[in-house]
Amino acid sequence: VNLEFPFSTVDRFITPVPRFFVRNHFPQPEMEASSWRLSIEGEVEHPGELDYEALLALPAREVASLIECAGNGRSLLQPAVKGVPWGMGAVGNAVWTGVPLRDVLERAGVRPGAAEVVLQGADAGAVTQEPETPGVIHYARSLPLAEALRPEVLLAYRMNGDPLRPEHGYPVRALVPGWYGMASVKWLTRVLVTDRPFQGYFQTFDYTRWERDNGLPTLVPLGEIPVKAAISRPAAGERLPAGRDCRIEGAAWAGTAAVARVEVSTDGGQIWSAARLLGEPAPYTWCLWEYAWQLPTHPGPCALLARATDARGRVQPMHRDPDRNTYMINHVIPVKVEVVNGE
Amino acid sequence: VNLEFPFSTVDRFITPVPRFFVRNHFPQPEMEASSWRLSIEGEVEHPGELDYEALLALPAREVASLIECAGNGRSLLQPAVKGVPWGMGAVGNAVWTGVPLRDVLERAGVRPGAAEVVLQGADAGAVTQEPETPGVIHYARSLPLAEALRPEVLLAYRMNGDPLRPEHGYPVRALVPGWYGMASVKWLTRVLVTDRPFQGYFQTFDYTRWERDNGLPTLVPLGEIPVKAAISRPAAGERLPAGRDCRIEGAAWAGTAAVARVEVSTDGGQIWSAARLLGEPAPYTWCLWEYAWQLPTHPGPCALLARATDARGRVQPMHRDPDRNTYMINHVIPVKVEVVNGE
Repeated sequence: VNLEFPFSTVDRFITPVPRFFVRNHFPQPEMEASSWRLSIEGEVEHPGELDYEALLALPAREVASLIECAGNGRSLLQPAVKGVPWGMGAVGNAVWTGVPLRDVLERAGVRPGAAEVVLQGADAGAVTQEPETPGVIHYARSLPLAEALRPEVLLAYRMNGDPLRPEHGYPVRALVPGWYGMASVKWLTRVLVTDRPFQGYFQTFDYTRWERDNGLPTLVPLGEIPVKAAISRPAAGERLPAGRDCRIEGAAWAGTAAVARVEVSTDGGQIWSAARLLGEPAPYTWCLWEYAWQLPTHPGPCALLARATDARGRVQPMHRDPDRNTYMINHVIPVKVEVVNGE
Repeated sequence: VNLEFPFSTVDRFITPVPRFFVRNHFPQPEMEASSWRLSIEGEVEHPGELDYEALLALPAREVASLIECAGNGRSLLQPAVKGVPWGMGAVGNAVWTGVPLRDVLERAGVRPGAAEVVLQGADAGAVTQEPETPGVIHYARSLPLAEALRPEVLLAYRMNGDPLRPEHGYPVRALVPGWYGMASVKWLTRVLVTDRPFQGYFQTFDYTRWERDNGLPTLVPLGEIPVKAAISRPAAGERLPAGRDCRIEGAAWAGTAAVARVEVSTDGGQIWSAARLLGEPAPYTWCLWEYAWQLPTHPGPCALLARATDARGRVQPMHRDPDRNTYMINHVIPVKVEVVNGE
């Protein structure tokens, strides 16, 4: 089951859990905290298991982080592409509580030759349409070791203060702030440290993009979320009364960077004006923004655009890069509204 | 254009060029020796270009080697799979003349950080059915550095003594003895030394298999040809007169190893008998073999099997490994014939 919520309903910093999008690759596994075990294996000095009680006994950390699906916005692409036809709502922002993966890895003693950390979920199944999975496989995704050791990468067991709900990975999921959701493996049961890059299904046949290396396209797994502003209101197709005031609202985010500014255009991209950021931008999470727009006095169509820049100076692109396959949709996409006479 | 020849016509050690299978990924490029250049780039001290005359002036080497398509035998798989529906004839054996790639790499001075050598052809195009190529790309394939430095890996310009024919890669192709044909890049124009594994289209979305690493399937590029015996005569479906003598014939090969023995069964795999090897088995090339079979005196169906073992003790498997996707088809496949009364 994959669920999203209309992006036009985004009106607060923290997304309530019942409004948080859900993306499963295989049927949701039945999990109990009492029988849950996390296996830590591979290139570590002390392989072992951790149960739920032992995890909760370790020092915890809270991180505000959004999760965005790597295919969020896919249904807006032209021409149409394959994949889950997400609108703009496959994104949500929450406060997560958990134990830094780093602490667990350090206790296990990562060996010098370690290259990556594979995170494996309890969910398993087979995809039989092309590209096929090699039979029944577990959902699994790897992080380069340096990413896995970022202190904000969590073995998370709480979402907005409550235990994880089953569809969000109960009892324990990974949380990789700043990376697309495919990295935040739900129903986490195995941490495998490897001495070479993991080439699993979900980082080769799926969740990959092309990078040009000496002119040759080379396939790389998706990772960090790039900078993006999205308009929540008005919604596409809305009819707005001429001459009135209208507040254009939205959210902006930039992976592991903070958003620096958001600009808005109401004329399809000729003139850009600064939007007002609501709250202090921070890495991993989004920043809500608004822009006071006085509607034209004459009726007609308007194309609303929003464009974000992050604290590292990276600007949201105006055009789609086809090397991203059906993922990483962060180029500026107009929201078309209609200005109408009187009311 | 992809062309094969009936495997039942294999009757000599060297396959005549006109009977050698052809596999192209993109339209055949128009090439001239006079304008041909090989660019040597990347992690080398002295990047540069080589023309045809300069290549021919370097010390040459002759190697007898077969080339087998990685999907050879695919049409015999049950259930049917996608891909070029090769019978058993996407294989041929030739004598190749060329300059060891190693010599050219050593002249260029491979840097210490080098990991792989990408071989790029002049052929280019786009595959638009899934999995799609990222637009128009060149055919390209990499070798781990140690493989590229094998002395028998050639920049080949002659096949069975004559200049390469256009469909076989004129003026210069790679020859990677012991590896499937996808490594022996035709119309070779670029040698790129890289400091990390190349993840091109033809070693991720295509020409790959799954390997189980700690229980997790991880995608690996195809490489060496495994041990295999194939029956050329009698052909499947042949009707043979009861009580007569019949010679079962075929060829066997084993990648970079020599074939050690071939066994034949005429009863579907109950009893195995040694076949006679014709000539001295050697790495890279095939060894023809024969077995004198006295046909049963009663009519009925017979399943003929051949099974090879290589000099490293590896035995041809009896069953198909699904992790090989639609490639590396070397399991024993029965040739079904019918013994009939009289003549």
